Amino acid sequence: MNIGLDMMGGDLAPLEAVIGIHDYFSSASTPAHLFLIGNTEKINPLLSEYNLPADNFTLIHAPQVIDMHEHPTKALKEKRESSIAVGFHLLATGKIDAFISAGNTGAMLVGSLYSLKPVEGVLRPTISTIIPKENGKTGLLLDVGLNSDCKPEHLNQFATMGTVYAQQILGIEQPRVALLNIGEEEGKGNLLAQATYPLLKENKHIHFVGNVEGRDVFLDKADIMVCDGFTGNIILKMAESFHSITQQKNIQHEYFDRFNFENYGGTPVLGVAKPVIIGHGISKALAFKNMILLAEKMIQTGIMDKLKTEVAAD
Amino acid sequence: MNIGLDMMGGDLAPLEAVIGIHDYFSSASTPAHLFLIGNTEKINPLLSEYNLPADNFTLIHAPQVIDMHEHPTKALKEKRESSIAVGFHLLATGKIDAFISAGNTGAMLVGSLYSLKPVEGVLRPTISTIIPKENGKTGLLLDVGLNSDCKPEHLNQFATMGTVYAQQILGIEQPRVALLNIGEEEGKGNLLAQATYPLLKENKHIHFVGNVEGRDVFLDKADIMVCDGFTGNIILKMAESFHSITQQKNIQHEYFDRFNFENYGGTPVLGVAKPVIIGHGISKALAFKNMILLAEKMIQTGIMDKLKTEVAAD
Repeated sequence: MNIGLDMMGGDLAPLEAVIGIHDYFSSASTPAHLFLIGNTEKINPLLSEYNLPADNFTLIHAPQVIDMHEHPTKALKEKRESSIAVGFHLLATGKIDAFISAGNTGAMLVGSLYSLKPVEGVLRPTISTIIPKENGKTGLLLDVGLNSDCKPEHLNQFATMGTVYAQQILGIEQPRVALLNIGEEEGKGNLLAQATYPLLKENKHIHFVGNVEGRDVFLDKADIMVCDGFTGNIILKMAESFHSITQQKNIQHEYFDRFNFENYGGTPVLGVAKPVIIGHGISKALAFKNMILLAEKMIQTGIMDKLKTEVAAD
Repeated sequence: MNIGLDMMGGDLAPLEAVIGIHDYFSSASTPAHLFLIGNTEKINPLLSEYNLPADNFTLIHAPQVIDMHEHPTKALKEKRESSIAVGFHLLATGKIDAFISAGNTGAMLVGSLYSLKPVEGVLRPTISTIIPKENGKTGLLLDVGLNSDCKPEHLNQFATMGTVYAQQILGIEQPRVALLNIGEEEGKGNLLAQATYPLLKENKHIHFVGNVEGRDVFLDKADIMVCDGFTGNIILKMAESFHSITQQKNIQHEYFDRFNFENYGGTPVLGVAKPVIIGHGISKALAFKNMILLAEKMIQTGIMDKLKTEVAAD
């Protein structure tokens, strides 16, 4: 199993990436082989300092970096020697089985959509976020920004893909799927929600529990909530802002700590042929370690094949 | 100036309504004349108990009540003697100049749209909510649920109406208007946001400051944020849920107290010919008092005429 890691991606790279890898190697009994992609001049001293086991990784020199604020498509086209471009090349050519980066999110998305094929049958790949529920559990919200305009069929597939992810990766046997809406009963909502509800009701690959409203987002009424990427992105960013606001106001509570998204370790792009994991820009060592573990799990469970089977049978 | 008040609307009516009226009469130097609409058997003992000045109000008997969970259109049609139906009749026939209720929100919206005409030129009346900013200020978000599917022209008018409201009622001289979006630059967002941006930029009746994202909702980047009613309703209900969640977890902070929407005193329906104010279901005395003061201000400032002028000139 070969996992590629962008060593230059994120505000705290490469140092926190190296510490995360160190922690991963220290805790894994049979660790995956890692391809560390980035500027070797900057990485090498850290690899020595943290004494990473040389047999367990391959260093791939990529002299360029796509910055956080660069235009994704343009940067990917022009910076062929960037860590992200090199990573996608390795992934597309089968040298690595998964690719992880906490770098430019747009470039990671563009790379996922254009270097990789979608899983057969998938209309629109999607990205999700973890939602911390007030009772201690976590839920999944998708789409959170990859698809700002959606059709009912897209939301229906997000529900199927979210279900496979929750089963395979989060270990929820029969995840409850809800439609994010502005009313409880069937027939409520905007045109998209009204047209999506019957599809979800008929979808035999999911356990549909009906509509949830904005006030239910942090309650444990569903394990998976589906919505268009515009709504989902606004919810995600509002949720992230609670963490900053409570920190800034010095409001201490365990619940708000769970809004610290950098701890969750990144979100996979669901529906593309191979595992791609996008980390938060301020990912720390724990996030990097968690992303490697997530990539490992996605490869081991063969989640891409399961997605294909479930989506094809829709 | 005659203001109608539904005495049966809300979980804590009529008691809290009576206390709110009492407080209003006690504090106003030249109070408006109030039309108190509801079941006189239930109201009369409270009016005596709180010793309301008889010259300052007219009691209107309305034996029926529309419950919180009744179907709005059906209930309004069948319960012609309900306090809400009677209130809208008084408003439409000019007996009162404004109508306030903390009762069935749907019935209040249906009544506003069908008993009253829209202000000339208004494509879609709208409802807004106050957003507590983390720096102590407040902002306005609209639409929050009256229009779940919107066109760019609608959002553009919400911006104009929100601006008039912020100027006339909230006392903000040059309110900053932002488009709620999922990216900062022009051209970002879903199709609606992409098409709305140029309209807002050209709108000479507003001070447009560009896009804001989900993470900016509680920051003081704009005084007015416009979005479709689906997105706005989800944000409103999420914000309301913070208050319940923090209360339930016993997290005390002044900032979270400001998420207690029952204190704000209700939201006006903007764009209909006369002032209609819809209160929160659990409105207390302060909310009722604030709603009377808001109705008074809306009548005094002639906000409906100003809305008409601004919208017509768009």
